[in-house]
Amino acid sequence: MNTSSSADKADVSVAQKQSEELLLQQAVGSFDQCPDPRLKEIMQSLVTHLHDFIRDVRLTEDEWWKGIRFLTEVGHITDDNRQEFILLSDVLGASMQMITVDNPLVAHATEATVFGPFFVENAPRVELGGDVAGVASGIPCWVEGTVTGAGGEPLPAARIEVWESDDEGLYDVQHDDDRLAGRAYVIADEAGAFRFWALVPTPYSIPDDGPVGRMLRAAGRSTMRPSHLHFMVTAPGYRRLVTHFFPRDDEVLPDDAVFGVRQSLIKDFARQSAGTPTPDGRDVGSGPWAKVNLDIVLAPAVADGSR
Amino acid sequence: MNTSSSADKADVSVAQKQSEELLLQQAVGSFDQCPDPRLKEIMQSLVTHLHDFIRDVRLTEDEWWKGIRFLTEVGHITDDNRQEFILLSDVLGASMQMITVDNPLVAHATEATVFGPFFVENAPRVELGGDVAGVASGIPCWVEGTVTGAGGEPLPAARIEVWESDDEGLYDVQHDDDRLAGRAYVIADEAGAFRFWALVPTPYSIPDDGPVGRMLRAAGRSTMRPSHLHFMVTAPGYRRLVTHFFPRDDEVLPDDAVFGVRQSLIKDFARQSAGTPTPDGRDVGSGPWAKVNLDIVLAPAVADGSR
Repeated sequence: MNTSSSADKADVSVAQKQSEELLLQQAVGSFDQCPDPRLKEIMQSLVTHLHDFIRDVRLTEDEWWKGIRFLTEVGHITDDNRQEFILLSDVLGASMQMITVDNPLVAHATEATVFGPFFVENAPRVELGGDVAGVASGIPCWVEGTVTGAGGEPLPAARIEVWESDDEGLYDVQHDDDRLAGRAYVIADEAGAFRFWALVPTPYSIPDDGPVGRMLRAAGRSTMRPSHLHFMVTAPGYRRLVTHFFPRDDEVLPDDAVFGVRQSLIKDFARQSAGTPTPDGRDVGSGPWAKVNLDIVLAPAVADGSR
Repeated sequence: MNTSSSADKADVSVAQKQSEELLLQQAVGSFDQCPDPRLKEIMQSLVTHLHDFIRDVRLTEDEWWKGIRFLTEVGHITDDNRQEFILLSDVLGASMQMITVDNPLVAHATEATVFGPFFVENAPRVELGGDVAGVASGIPCWVEGTVTGAGGEPLPAARIEVWESDDEGLYDVQHDDDRLAGRAYVIADEAGAFRFWALVPTPYSIPDDGPVGRMLRAAGRSTMRPSHLHFMVTAPGYRRLVTHFFPRDDEVLPDDAVFGVRQSLIKDFARQSAGTPTPDGRDVGSGPWAKVNLDIVLAPAVADGSR
């Protein structure tokens, strides 16, 4: 097994290499007259990397056919309720690389991570200190923090939207009873501070009964995502932040199937034994609860105002 | 418009570049335990080139969404009769690059080109000198040649399968009447020679009413293929050759939508005026006809015997 394959390897003749490079030039050149300069840039780069991939691995016709059949399966399982192309992008790290590129680091600002497929528009507003979980079951978790800009300035009235799975590892939309639970937004107070009750999140598997799941199993990879609490935070004049936070004690952290974990997003969700008084005096029943501080720092809006 | 985009460009900070490279390492590393070494090689190269593409063009979330929606449309228009993923691979030059890589040049051997979607199994046999066109309409074309190995040795009983469009630019399977026309195979004689009547081929557009056609129009590209006559030639001990030959006077030659043209495959289809005697005395009616010599040279079979 030759793992150092490449178009430069010794058994590719000069004439063969020239033939491959001429073809690449023709394919890139076919977009020279593209009237949209950005589309031209994207297609020419895509063609270059696609051809380089084929040449690097010395792709065979049988393997190409496997790829065509795989993509066809991904297309056919995708419908209004299931997006297997996004899942494929996720498990190849392409989604997270796009998020990384599209949300360049700003010193002190909270890092972004993947959006995921479980966000729902028009989630209800909950007052500060209120309950986001609703009928979703799990260990209650007090979440508090402050939203500031990268210079430390508090951001009053920042909008903080959160969503998460229940202790079965399921989001409300994955239950078949039209429930709305485990999602809401709160508005920060005049000091940019926020607080609400949610749940300690639970790890879950990505949908693994389709072609992407089969690919992951063939590759010996896990289909699990570590537990996390989704945030989308907006304030006028600042870059929209889409991220999530991960409990530090989650065993799945090193093997997130979609590469969403960043060290800066791992937080201490401190477990409290049953009977410990809650911050707001709320009666959380006879079981344990947890609390976590999630301070959020927004980057400035990008100059072109597109977001 | 900055067309020199790259992860190395000046406005990507060192910390940002490190973040992107760490993510790439994580995604590549996720396949380290893949039990199939070839799958591992392919997936790790694919992930590397995919991430490099995203970084090079600084892909935005909006553009990523456009890509997801485009692939979804390609998947949804694909069915048993239409393969839009193959068409996409074709118009990006990926199919032709795979063919080039998978059929390395052998001195003197006839070059391969794309297979195309219009081959049909179990086409009928036609005797040497017989008619391949059947009910397909067009200008009759006398095709003759010899099949040899790269050392000049004739290949008796080589099997030569041909298929082509009619003068509407349609293959038999594109008509809705279950006709079988414009396709057959002949067996070479004891000297490796073959001859048959076919049609002068006609240029046509690839299927352009789907997402791939829309992409080509947005990019200012043609959807046309130059006219061509498909060949698949096999002989025991030699590499299977899938190729086609193009008439030199076709105006579409420089802009083949799928990059299948090679200089060595362009041939003189010599037009003969009406009334010119035919090589075999056949009466081709009152119109013109053509003739072409298509000598074919097969490469040796590859050492591992896989083809």
